[in-house]
Amino acid sequence: MIYPESLARLIEEFEKLPGIGQKTAERLAMHVNKVPAEEALKLAAAVAEVKNKIRQCSVCNNITEQDPCAICGDPSRDRAKICVVEETKDVIALERTGSFKGVYHVLLGKISPLKGIGPEHIRIDHLLRRIRETEPKEVILATGADIEGEATALYLTRLLKGVGITVSRIAYGLPVGSSLEYANDITIARAMEGRKEIS
Amino acid sequence: MIYPESLARLIEEFEKLPGIGQKTAERLAMHVNKVPAEEALKLAAAVAEVKNKIRQCSVCNNITEQDPCAICGDPSRDRAKICVVEETKDVIALERTGSFKGVYHVLLGKISPLKGIGPEHIRIDHLLRRIRETEPKEVILATGADIEGEATALYLTRLLKGVGITVSRIAYGLPVGSSLEYANDITIARAMEGRKEIS
Repeated sequence: MIYPESLARLIEEFEKLPGIGQKTAERLAMHVNKVPAEEALKLAAAVAEVKNKIRQCSVCNNITEQDPCAICGDPSRDRAKICVVEETKDVIALERTGSFKGVYHVLLGKISPLKGIGPEHIRIDHLLRRIRETEPKEVILATGADIEGEATALYLTRLLKGVGITVSRIAYGLPVGSSLEYANDITIARAMEGRKEIS
Repeated sequence: MIYPESLARLIEEFEKLPGIGQKTAERLAMHVNKVPAEEALKLAAAVAEVKNKIRQCSVCNNITEQDPCAICGDPSRDRAKICVVEETKDVIALERTGSFKGVYHVLLGKISPLKGIGPEHIRIDHLLRRIRETEPKEVILATGADIEGEATALYLTRLLKGVGITVSRIAYGLPVGSSLEYANDITIARAMEGRKEIS
């Protein structure tokens, strides 16, 4: 034995976290061992509380402590615009910018034939039901710009064609602050296609 | 609000860990949110268990679940050799190599006048008492090769002079696997001084 049993177990648990290797797990466990019990137990309590309190919003599938979530329950948000994203973290990224005042729909995944994830495995049925019931004016497809995000957007575009609502896709282009030199060819081509007249 | 309250609190707790920034803390918290409750609660339980079970060995100050620790309590270890280190993690580093069969003494710090840490703040009195009581043959100073580790080793050398025991310092030299090209001048000079005849 090198580490006492309980410390070895904590290292093992830290190692299960994403991006945490053995060395880091050891460092974190030694830190937990070193700080006052009160401090360390706050971390344990916070983990337990998240598992206790966080649930899914029944309207948009976003994580929340109350149902519906703070966004779906906010009367100032524009229910006529539904922004479709892959994951909760995308909602957080968009909310951080403050640039969108509509509501969200989290698919909890994206279509990926290679991984065996079809349309029936993500919350597309749920989205269609919601669109039928709430009759929004616009659905904004904000899935990622990778192959799987594109496939999901394409699938939804076809599905929503003829429903009589505007379907839009978030813009492709140069990341703000970057130079053309470092952008890949497809990004540059898309940025050119998507150009706007300066008024 | 962007994150639900309990998730925001967990992110905050993760951020307190060493080397964990905001982005990583967010990623870890989202992971905890995603895994089954059973999995996540194992982490919480492991943290609590470490705080519950880990204590200090009354002989050597190493961390342990029983007192004395597994090393001090092992009859096969050579009590005539005490290796003095700064921290528990140094014991772990040495144990990993399996190259030392004596016992340890963890100082729980090093002398650092700049940080206001004097000999009285680390377990030097404890070491002297232990040496008086157990009369070892050799004390090996394995504090770090930085200024503070050196100062601590120097202080102990002077203190132990005339007690009639061998006091040794772990060797300086090239790290195994490295080339001279990348070693600093002092390391090379010390490696030269410490050269050994090949038999």
